[in-house]
Amino acid sequence: MNIIETAQKAKTASLQMAAISSDIKNQALQAMAKALTNNAAAIFEANHADIARSQSENLDAPMLKRLKFDESKLQSVVDGIASLELLADPVGHVQQATLLDDGLELRRVSCPIGVIGMIFESRPDALVQISSLCLKSGNAVLLKGGREAIETNRVLTKVIAEATIAAGMPEGWIQLLETREDVNAMLKLDQYIDLIIPRGSNAFVQYIMQNSSIAVLGHADGICHLYIDSAADIDMAVKVAVDAKCQYVSVCNATETMLVHSNVAKVFLPKLKAELDKHNVEIFGCERVAAIIPDVTPATDTTWKTEYLDYKVSIKLVDSIDEAIAHINKYSSRHTESIITADANAAQRFMDLCDSGSVMWNCSTRFADGFRYGLGAEVGISTSKIHARGPVGLDGLQSYKWRLKGNGHIVADYANGTKTFKHKPLNN
Amino acid sequence: MNIIETAQKAKTASLQMAAISSDIKNQALQAMAKALTNNAAAIFEANHADIARSQSENLDAPMLKRLKFDESKLQSVVDGIASLELLADPVGHVQQATLLDDGLELRRVSCPIGVIGMIFESRPDALVQISSLCLKSGNAVLLKGGREAIETNRVLTKVIAEATIAAGMPEGWIQLLETREDVNAMLKLDQYIDLIIPRGSNAFVQYIMQNSSIAVLGHADGICHLYIDSAADIDMAVKVAVDAKCQYVSVCNATETMLVHSNVAKVFLPKLKAELDKHNVEIFGCERVAAIIPDVTPATDTTWKTEYLDYKVSIKLVDSIDEAIAHINKYSSRHTESIITADANAAQRFMDLCDSGSVMWNCSTRFADGFRYGLGAEVGISTSKIHARGPVGLDGLQSYKWRLKGNGHIVADYANGTKTFKHKPLNN
Repeated sequence: MNIIETAQKAKTASLQMAAISSDIKNQALQAMAKALTNNAAAIFEANHADIARSQSENLDAPMLKRLKFDESKLQSVVDGIASLELLADPVGHVQQATLLDDGLELRRVSCPIGVIGMIFESRPDALVQISSLCLKSGNAVLLKGGREAIETNRVLTKVIAEATIAAGMPEGWIQLLETREDVNAMLKLDQYIDLIIPRGSNAFVQYIMQNSSIAVLGHADGICHLYIDSAADIDMAVKVAVDAKCQYVSVCNATETMLVHSNVAKVFLPKLKAELDKHNVEIFGCERVAAIIPDVTPATDTTWKTEYLDYKVSIKLVDSIDEAIAHINKYSSRHTESIITADANAAQRFMDLCDSGSVMWNCSTRFADGFRYGLGAEVGISTSKIHARGPVGLDGLQSYKWRLKGNGHIVADYANGTKTFKHKPLNN
Repeated sequence: MNIIETAQKAKTASLQMAAISSDIKNQALQAMAKALTNNAAAIFEANHADIARSQSENLDAPMLKRLKFDESKLQSVVDGIASLELLADPVGHVQQATLLDDGLELRRVSCPIGVIGMIFESRPDALVQISSLCLKSGNAVLLKGGREAIETNRVLTKVIAEATIAAGMPEGWIQLLETREDVNAMLKLDQYIDLIIPRGSNAFVQYIMQNSSIAVLGHADGICHLYIDSAADIDMAVKVAVDAKCQYVSVCNATETMLVHSNVAKVFLPKLKAELDKHNVEIFGCERVAAIIPDVTPATDTTWKTEYLDYKVSIKLVDSIDEAIAHINKYSSRHTESIITADANAAQRFMDLCDSGSVMWNCSTRFADGFRYGLGAEVGISTSKIHARGPVGLDGLQSYKWRLKGNGHIVADYANGTKTFKHKPLNN
């Protein structure tokens, strides 16, 4: 089957999925979990083959670790499926209801998007998470995983497809793509595919965003900022700064740049440095920072645009909150920004004017995450302002349609003045 | 100023507009309406110049009519601004609120998208409508109108900019682009422009959609369907069919194709033809239609893909509701589809499975419109499933951001088990 046939089949399946009941979807999720457990031996065997081949190809250690799909990964995806079952069905939610006129009722109702093209990295557990999210939200999915995980992904897709189709899902709702050419072809198939979600390196996501005629949901990089205001509680600022930078450095919501108000810099920076030294964090700073604390690598033009994903941080002094906001709106990747201040007006101003998906007050940027936000499972984090923004859960996999119910109503009656619209809110 | 400087200026303005109060925005709308009235003479003079030049260039009569901006058009845009003032501010609406943990409160709050690139046809009144919608929704706007309306658009933009900036809007929030090169350049400026809204011909909108690296909201064509089910009330079906086809033929929500269940075709089609004949509607039909009524032009491969925008209609017999749904999902432009039936299950199935922005039961496709839907002003109609779908009002010009308020909360406490999330709904 070529990519166009594959996409057409997914489209056909997606049209049927729009009308599948919550019960059937939850039964299919149960069947998925059970089949994964029952086929554990075959899955692990395929994964061993992937790991052996990747080792012989000298794949690096972090990649090998991510590639591994063992008992604990299996348990974790099975637990994830169980928690997804408990979440409310996002389809069919009445978002708005209006009585246009007697007997003419309009409702805006959530519905699945259609076909999702998902491109992800080496982790085979991502395949299970993504497909279960798509199932629950009523979307068909075309999956393209990393080449190194090909054997594992094949077995997983086969097991999931067989179990869920037997439980009532339409043929073709989940399909695996295997070549890089398929990905490039997919980016042009806007007739069949409604949304592309890429996960991977900055360069990879940017490539997808710039070469797709289909809408793309995701983020290329995460240059998050922490601003220490002149009215900051200094001990709180140090505690949050250490968490935002050091709690987990290799993730998109870790803080990369700290902006410090000059009024508090002389008190804050030495305390911060003492704590960052415990984690061996390298500091890149402006000259004014270097004048206050030692061991500062001079900042260059690229410093403020750099996502380290490492024990490194950029620090700059600013003389006002507006200077901080301007710096953020210039250099941020629009992911997450936080202000530390005791001044409610300053916090309001910062949160109103920073043009990012998540804006925070007196807490760590590391909270920007679908699970921590209480969304349950997470598709990813979007830095776009169109459709979904910030951490994206099942809601981000929904569109809506307008449903209008009449009794022979025609527009001519309203155009010629025989009737007039009432436009009253309805109780769903 | 070149296009990049123009776009940067709009971006800067948009960042400030995110925090402008409802009162200031409404005062700016009032100032806009007053200034338009006060400058009526200058506006009409510019419009006369545009019309005179366009006449000498042999612009066709319908275009000349749309180009005209006279007392009645002025009154209509001033009335439109007044009704916009009365609508609720779409910015700052709390869509979701969650207590993540004691003292850690998350809110998803609507906010402006940023910079809107609006490309529209000859009608200068569209410039006023669009800029007032952008103002109310807190968005900066780059406007590109038709070349034939250039003098009128210049005066309108100058009058609106001066009045609204004096009333508190930021410099650069509304700017006019004048060349086709500017449009092509704009489509690449995803760094500064967040959404493109094109209005115009099918070919033009498709060109924009295929050449923009920025999200595009709109519709290229409107191939809307009316399906007459076997359980239809025949008189209702005839009445709705005439309205859907003939009430106003040159608009996107007029029905272009009727699908008729074979069980009712022999009764319905002659009655329909008698009514369509009064409007001189040409019928393109399948062989089975031609066997029931006379004067049917044989349908070809392209018939079902044709948007007539004229007194012409395509008619096809089908043997089941599922055949009708399959035809619609194959040929529809995903704008609007309606079913006529007394069978609630059939209506439900049709509305669930037709993959279009508006799905209707026992009423005319002509209702698919922002004003009729009670949205107040309308930006346009979207056939995309991402972001906004169907008729788009002020809501479609909104994004959202996540606002998290803490008290020194750090992620480490949750990662090491010292604290656990509560994830309780909050009352906004």
